[in-house]
Amino acid sequence: MPELFTVVTPDEARRTFLAHLTTGVAAERVPVSDALGRVTRGDVVAPSDLPAFPRSTMDGYAVRAADTYGASEGVPAYLSVTGEVLMGHDAAIVVSAGGTVVVHTGGMLPVGADAVVMVENTQRVDDGTIEVVRQVAPGENVIQVGEDARAGDVLVPTGRWLRPQDLGGLMGMGITEASVAPRPVVAIMSTGDELVPPDTAVGPGQVRDINTYSISALVTRGGGAPRPLGIVPDDWKMQVEAARAGLEGADMLVVSAGSSVSARDLTSRVIAALGEPGILVHGVAVRPGKPTILAVADGKPVVGLPGNPVSAMVVFDLLVTPALHLLSGCASPPPRPFVEATLARNLASTTGREDYVQVRVEQRDGGSWAVPVFGESNLITTTMRADGVVRVPLDKHGLLEGERVVVRLY
Amino acid sequence: MPELFTVVTPDEARRTFLAHLTTGVAAERVPVSDALGRVTRGDVVAPSDLPAFPRSTMDGYAVRAADTYGASEGVPAYLSVTGEVLMGHDAAIVVSAGGTVVVHTGGMLPVGADAVVMVENTQRVDDGTIEVVRQVAPGENVIQVGEDARAGDVLVPTGRWLRPQDLGGLMGMGITEASVAPRPVVAIMSTGDELVPPDTAVGPGQVRDINTYSISALVTRGGGAPRPLGIVPDDWKMQVEAARAGLEGADMLVVSAGSSVSARDLTSRVIAALGEPGILVHGVAVRPGKPTILAVADGKPVVGLPGNPVSAMVVFDLLVTPALHLLSGCASPPPRPFVEATLARNLASTTGREDYVQVRVEQRDGGSWAVPVFGESNLITTTMRADGVVRVPLDKHGLLEGERVVVRLY
Repeated sequence: MPELFTVVTPDEARRTFLAHLTTGVAAERVPVSDALGRVTRGDVVAPSDLPAFPRSTMDGYAVRAADTYGASEGVPAYLSVTGEVLMGHDAAIVVSAGGTVVVHTGGMLPVGADAVVMVENTQRVDDGTIEVVRQVAPGENVIQVGEDARAGDVLVPTGRWLRPQDLGGLMGMGITEASVAPRPVVAIMSTGDELVPPDTAVGPGQVRDINTYSISALVTRGGGAPRPLGIVPDDWKMQVEAARAGLEGADMLVVSAGSSVSARDLTSRVIAALGEPGILVHGVAVRPGKPTILAVADGKPVVGLPGNPVSAMVVFDLLVTPALHLLSGCASPPPRPFVEATLARNLASTTGREDYVQVRVEQRDGGSWAVPVFGESNLITTTMRADGVVRVPLDKHGLLEGERVVVRLY
Repeated sequence: MPELFTVVTPDEARRTFLAHLTTGVAAERVPVSDALGRVTRGDVVAPSDLPAFPRSTMDGYAVRAADTYGASEGVPAYLSVTGEVLMGHDAAIVVSAGGTVVVHTGGMLPVGADAVVMVENTQRVDDGTIEVVRQVAPGENVIQVGEDARAGDVLVPTGRWLRPQDLGGLMGMGITEASVAPRPVVAIMSTGDELVPPDTAVGPGQVRDINTYSISALVTRGGGAPRPLGIVPDDWKMQVEAARAGLEGADMLVVSAGSSVSARDLTSRVIAALGEPGILVHGVAVRPGKPTILAVADGKPVVGLPGNPVSAMVVFDLLVTPALHLLSGCASPPPRPFVEATLARNLASTTGREDYVQVRVEQRDGGSWAVPVFGESNLITTTMRADGVVRVPLDKHGLLEGERVVVRLY
């Protein structure tokens, strides 16, 4: 029973798949302090001007700038010190011509003053008088009202993955709750008569389920909420029922298919039966990962991932993570880490296919080297020994030892 | 009151600080399925050989390789099909000379067979006979017992930050619990008479606490457990008491200092009073971030971070994250993402100081550009508008427009 593919490039596969998906509209309110890594739904705008009052950026003296014009070491300006602005308090004192008050960094500028002279540019003459030895311009060493943000400014646009400084900034504006996209719920079904749960002793011919756990973790890393459905045997009725039940209340279904052609064929027939329009892509020009299935069932994405753990990793990264971002409306997903390295040996490939080769990154001779990890791609431990993958582009016969390559880190 | 620094380079500061810290020895057992991002404590070894039985890597026929020697399209070998190995079952049938059984990818190799012929290299003659048109060598298309891992092999070394494939691989070996380092507990104290909690209306001269939340999120991202102590006024006794109470049961204390020299001076005197050996570094040749304090109090690290949010981000990344990794024994921390870009304008600097300049990364003219984010470093929104920072090295006067730079992404 040969398997019939109509192979498309990874880029075509991704475009076709994403074109059939729509971003959710639901939002949930969460405390900003718990929102690290969540995706904003709707622009977050400043409710008021920040700062709400003019603040000094220096330790020094609040002055009328005009009183300092022409001041220098040789010809200092003399000002009388009439008080001090305490941190956290209203600057109750008014600065009038020839007067000044002590201000601290972050303190409120008093009425009448329009600039701050750094303490380093002053000299205390007596208890009530200072010399200013450098002139300041109006506004110097002062943050004006609204200079950080104006009421109504977009602080964080919709679709932003929230970072530590975003949480701090929102809290600083008094925004303690945010509307975020619900995490896309991803049902995960592992199929195969040979699979048993990890806490089970394996009998002859049996292997423990791996992909439920690596895929769950990939879903979590991509901002989704994994919902494992467990192991389903290679039986049409059982797989269709489990898949349908899994799709209820989930936003996406990922099926980890069996490794044999007959098991994969069963998976593809199950996926085709789940809803319209059904299978969009069956076969991607990528190695490992060729038998990938991308489908949409009544508006929900369904992915058939190859059973081999390396293929599942590569295909998830290429095709499933972008779908997760689209579902949550994440316009600026967190950047993927990579390093540049020198390839430690030749990699052969075939044109018309993207190859992803697992590598370790080693530091030697003052540089980074990408060393291919040996072993069949269906070995589990190769993924654990690798630091990432090197891509051999579609149009290349391979890469040469000594070439500079980009290692996409796992 | 001038502030007295003995400024050291960021590298010296980090070395001095880390040399005084020790990795914890405590371990906690967690379910592997919850262990994403946790750091292993102790090597994880394979409890048994994987696979436990020889497996086929192809759909095809299990054979004695010797029976296929010399087989070709012109002179095929004829073998009698005596059965099929079902997935998940013992290969009960023995393959004897001249015989073969059907096997599927991942299925168990039957006794007597030592190789698999791919189905593509066979032809069905009748119900009981196949032609083999290509010879196979012993071991071909077979994963041997223990080829993936041998009992006793180190699957994951101690100090590894667990990734999705590590979780899958451990579950595949039947390892459902792992020993991991407890998350370092980091007490966070925000100081300043001007600070109020984010859910409070601000009066004149007051500002909302920002750093408690951005630092908490940075701690979380670095693998630690934040424990916010709240806002403490600029009062010696209150700060010492809060700091001592915070250090009890925490593994590290981070104090977000006030912005004024007098508030920072208070913080440094508080930190010096917490225990021996006290302050190790006071002043780092980095901008922003110069007034940083690194201390150890009776074996626990204490950091005085500058109050300005940009400085706090830069210094946390440079000096606190490595300390968190050391405390948890994380020998291979997750890689930091970065991008290369072309600098969009000149950046002036001073030699003898590392400058970190916030930039946005823009795509135009077919390339990535690093565009400096304008605004005082004490503005909050600059960190929210930036994608990362560009470092101007210690020994440079600046960087020129058009230079290629590395943007360390936030």
